[in-house]
Amino acid sequence: MSALQINHQRLWSRLMQMAKIGATVNGGCNRQALTTLDKEGRDLLIGWATELGCSHRFDEIGNLFIRKEGTQPELPPVITGSHLDTQPTGGKFDGIYGVLGGFEVIESIIEQNLEHKHSIEVVAWTNEEGSRFDCAMMGSAVWTDFMPLQQAYDLKAFDDGARVEDELIRLGHKGEHAAKAFPVKASYELHIEQGPVLEKEGLTIGVVTGVQHMSRHHLNIFGQECHAGPTPMAMRKDPVQALSLLLPKLYAAADKFGEDSRVTFGMLDAQPGSPNTVPGKLSISMDLRHPDEASYNGLVADAYAHIKAACEELGVDYTLEETWKAPGVTFAKDCVDAVQAAVNDLGYSNRQMVSGAGHDSVHVSKVCDTSMIFIPCRDGLSHNEDEYASPEHVGQGGDVLLNAMLRSAQ
Amino acid sequence: MSALQINHQRLWSRLMQMAKIGATVNGGCNRQALTTLDKEGRDLLIGWATELGCSHRFDEIGNLFIRKEGTQPELPPVITGSHLDTQPTGGKFDGIYGVLGGFEVIESIIEQNLEHKHSIEVVAWTNEEGSRFDCAMMGSAVWTDFMPLQQAYDLKAFDDGARVEDELIRLGHKGEHAAKAFPVKASYELHIEQGPVLEKEGLTIGVVTGVQHMSRHHLNIFGQECHAGPTPMAMRKDPVQALSLLLPKLYAAADKFGEDSRVTFGMLDAQPGSPNTVPGKLSISMDLRHPDEASYNGLVADAYAHIKAACEELGVDYTLEETWKAPGVTFAKDCVDAVQAAVNDLGYSNRQMVSGAGHDSVHVSKVCDTSMIFIPCRDGLSHNEDEYASPEHVGQGGDVLLNAMLRSAQ
Repeated sequence: MSALQINHQRLWSRLMQMAKIGATVNGGCNRQALTTLDKEGRDLLIGWATELGCSHRFDEIGNLFIRKEGTQPELPPVITGSHLDTQPTGGKFDGIYGVLGGFEVIESIIEQNLEHKHSIEVVAWTNEEGSRFDCAMMGSAVWTDFMPLQQAYDLKAFDDGARVEDELIRLGHKGEHAAKAFPVKASYELHIEQGPVLEKEGLTIGVVTGVQHMSRHHLNIFGQECHAGPTPMAMRKDPVQALSLLLPKLYAAADKFGEDSRVTFGMLDAQPGSPNTVPGKLSISMDLRHPDEASYNGLVADAYAHIKAACEELGVDYTLEETWKAPGVTFAKDCVDAVQAAVNDLGYSNRQMVSGAGHDSVHVSKVCDTSMIFIPCRDGLSHNEDEYASPEHVGQGGDVLLNAMLRSAQ
Repeated sequence: MSALQINHQRLWSRLMQMAKIGATVNGGCNRQALTTLDKEGRDLLIGWATELGCSHRFDEIGNLFIRKEGTQPELPPVITGSHLDTQPTGGKFDGIYGVLGGFEVIESIIEQNLEHKHSIEVVAWTNEEGSRFDCAMMGSAVWTDFMPLQQAYDLKAFDDGARVEDELIRLGHKGEHAAKAFPVKASYELHIEQGPVLEKEGLTIGVVTGVQHMSRHHLNIFGQECHAGPTPMAMRKDPVQALSLLLPKLYAAADKFGEDSRVTFGMLDAQPGSPNTVPGKLSISMDLRHPDEASYNGLVADAYAHIKAACEELGVDYTLEETWKAPGVTFAKDCVDAVQAAVNDLGYSNRQMVSGAGHDSVHVSKVCDTSMIFIPCRDGLSHNEDEYASPEHVGQGGDVLLNAMLRSAQ
């Protein structure tokens, strides 16, 4: 199969057009889910689709599907997509690239008169970011039956308390179609990496084989408040001293399970927080991730054992609980192979990798064969107004998506 | 010299009477500096002094002196004292014990017809706690010329904004006598330890040889915010990882300089404090103390070197500055020896120790020979409504003060 290409310049231009809706002064985007701006963004896409002669539909949770019929429309479609909503200080690419990249695939297929048996559908999932309504990947969660429709309807906005269902009605995005997975031949999602690996290694494409196992834990270490002066070190119950024992062991555990381990302490807070008082309580968040299930389980077990040992050694009490967990995903071999073959045909430099972040594809992968395609983003930045991917990489990622989808759609 | 004793029961009873003024529901005291309650407490003491036939006087900053003439009144007096003001949720002993213990010494001397050449004076320093007016040890600071009188006068209360001078006038405590040190033969201060050492070691008396060198430092470690998932550990600038390198070294430095070292991290805060983001900034307070000057300097130098090394190793920027410093004090050998001899005469179990906290005696020691006497307090608690010392220890501390003062007053 010879390698096809999309129209790089058109895709870039559409990304920049979409970025004007909700543009921030710092060059980013604020187009949060189910706002009037979110509707404007979707309307822009629907307008382009209508010009091309493609049909579109909304389902009950507002997921927007744009369809290009195949030669055998009764066959399950090959789908692709991501989301058009952004973080409050988000960028121009996260999510949007996946939707507009998918739409560019349809446009290139039409323009180049490429044949495919299976229909092609591009989807914009509702509320992936979870910044206005506290549920990331909401639209795909409902569609895959991971979350009940009514529960999603009843979520309330942080900003004005509006209900999801009421906002869907207000914007005209509450469709008649069931928010429920239909048979799908294969699903792809094109996305910026949101990490620094491809850029650092000078590679163009990440062939995504799955998503890390990940979980969040909350650790409280309880000490005994005492004055910084009179109390000898040996008579203290100092939670920071417990921290000094366990931190090196937890970073060493990350080393032990190889370069794919992730150990992150994002929150760290001492109470009462007085400079001349040994803290009575230390509150710490611990985020643990690994793509390999056995290594992930080993990392979690080691972390728990080290925390227990350190607190026992110093005679301080602690509580440790898992507050959130997302089991890892291994993408379907067929889809990963299709992406890899597409990249190989195009001759783009690449590596296989796992995603460190969650995506709509995590949900979608539960109901059909799925894979993802990553391109580099500058400094690994995302969820940030400085988020940036080069026009060249943006176009090359679209080429890969086109070729992978056509492989599945034959 | 045979060992004399004070009246244990009377001292305890007076402490309990004083504690009724400003008593809190939780068994503590709220008798903050220059309040009407503070005046009530001082009036109670003045009443007892007047009954005994002792004169009293206020100086310009409200320090209250009670005098028992010696046989040679022209000689410089031996003084003792502490403060009657408390923290908002303070106890019955911190400061009060030093004043009433001193007064009990006068009363015992009179009752037992003990002769002494040098006069004995008991002083209640104004505003030692610094909780209503933001200047701890204010009265003794002015008296020793550490702080200008006008600066103290202009301090404003946290609660109602009242000026120190106006409050002194309102309460009738602005005296005519200069707030300025006069010649003193020797000075003693009786105090609860405010730490756990005597209690833990089962000892009755701490012979205080000085006050620790102490300083406070603020450390900011700057990392690079990034998502907890996609960014490999080796590509992170993680300030918590710098913390994991330096904490064990700083605690080891405390060990290196012996059991008198104190290293305390009271404030610890990660920004932005999101569980799935590597912090961009870690903010830490570091309190360093040691009684020995060379060891103190070594501890500070080591801490700075370890912080520099850890941050350089991980390639993270940092700022480190000293925010407060109180040079240590070595009390006069004559006074320390007098206390030690008194304890030996009485046969009370004891040890020499340094004070971990500041006291009026730190100022007083700059202008005359000074020492302190500590007794155990339960669980090392102070600045706390649960602050407690046993009647037995309270009495025994008073015995030591009586004998030490008489040694100096001969």
